[in-house]
Amino acid sequence: MQRGKFIVIEGGDGAGKDTQIELLKKDFPDFVYTREPGGTPLGKVLREMVLHESYGALPLLTEAFLFLADRAQHAAEVVTPALAAGKTVVANRSWISMVAYQVYGRDHHDLKEVVDAAVARIYGECPIDLALILDLAPEVGVARQRAEGKKFDVMENMSLEARERVRNGFLKTARSLPAAQVINANRSIDEVYKEVKIAVSELLEKTL
Amino acid sequence: MQRGKFIVIEGGDGAGKDTQIELLKKDFPDFVYTREPGGTPLGKVLREMVLHESYGALPLLTEAFLFLADRAQHAAEVVTPALAAGKTVVANRSWISMVAYQVYGRDHHDLKEVVDAAVARIYGECPIDLALILDLAPEVGVARQRAEGKKFDVMENMSLEARERVRNGFLKTARSLPAAQVINANRSIDEVYKEVKIAVSELLEKTL
Repeated sequence: MQRGKFIVIEGGDGAGKDTQIELLKKDFPDFVYTREPGGTPLGKVLREMVLHESYGALPLLTEAFLFLADRAQHAAEVVTPALAAGKTVVANRSWISMVAYQVYGRDHHDLKEVVDAAVARIYGECPIDLALILDLAPEVGVARQRAEGKKFDVMENMSLEARERVRNGFLKTARSLPAAQVINANRSIDEVYKEVKIAVSELLEKTL
Repeated sequence: MQRGKFIVIEGGDGAGKDTQIELLKKDFPDFVYTREPGGTPLGKVLREMVLHESYGALPLLTEAFLFLADRAQHAAEVVTPALAAGKTVVANRSWISMVAYQVYGRDHHDLKEVVDAAVARIYGECPIDLALILDLAPEVGVARQRAEGKKFDVMENMSLEARERVRNGFLKTARSLPAAQVINANRSIDEVYKEVKIAVSELLEKTL
């Protein structure tokens, strides 16, 4: 059986990841749709620990390892078995968000070595085939989320300056990752989706 | 104020860590006594996740990151503040156990790079001043624990061959760590404690 493809949808808050994934679900109902963090029962608990501060505000390193545990569990329990069964997997966020938020956003570049070593081990058996990075100026993303009445969690409650660093982290990672494709998300949902769908379709065609 | 010292008591199952720590408590009641994993409220939950398989048997990588999160939290919440307040800290296990059990015991040397990078970050602000490694042939340790009627948890339920690898991991780490001191634990409690107490006293004298 041919191995499935691993697609991740990335981008800052308000860039439209959820919306684009909903559209993909209609066109590609056979894909496995999942998320990081929180894509497994264990991961849901770990995500709560970080985002809802069930144990108080966590030091950056604790947070990083909890997210890495979530990702390790998700890779082993969800992504790798699905790919092996020939399914295409679409994940809402991946290690790319981790680099963007924890390393760039928090400005902790001393974490990069740890994260890089961890990511190499975690995703060793499920490398990303296509990373669609929805790029948007942070002030536009935040305004969108405010307009929708979204309540911000710990991770989302950050300064515009930090959000600029997150955006920069996404763009820098994209430049060093051949599977990455940056999509201008400052357009209508349909315009963005047109580009998303072409990228996904081209990846699938390559496989045939 | 003079910074406190960080002492860790290490060794395989049945080597007598708990017993020796109880004796230290009597002679040095002002020390802060703690443990890894499980030395913080968050750590207790993470320890349960691994040892009691609340979410099923976990892949090695998930387990490693949960333990690293526990250690990061413990370093930030317990060890570093206590040392800064001039207190001497005694921990039952540390990253040395992680290397011995996860890397050597499980024979996953490909994890070493991740663990080494993580340990360097976690313990950066609280390097170990004295690591007392209670060394014992695994069959003796297991026999001791059986005699005490101990129930083995997931981590302790391993073959003698794996236990030999754990012991080897402790000894190899000791050779590369100047703060480590190997103590022959195949003797009476009092004989072992005599050596433990001398090592601790010498460390404290060095500080004066």
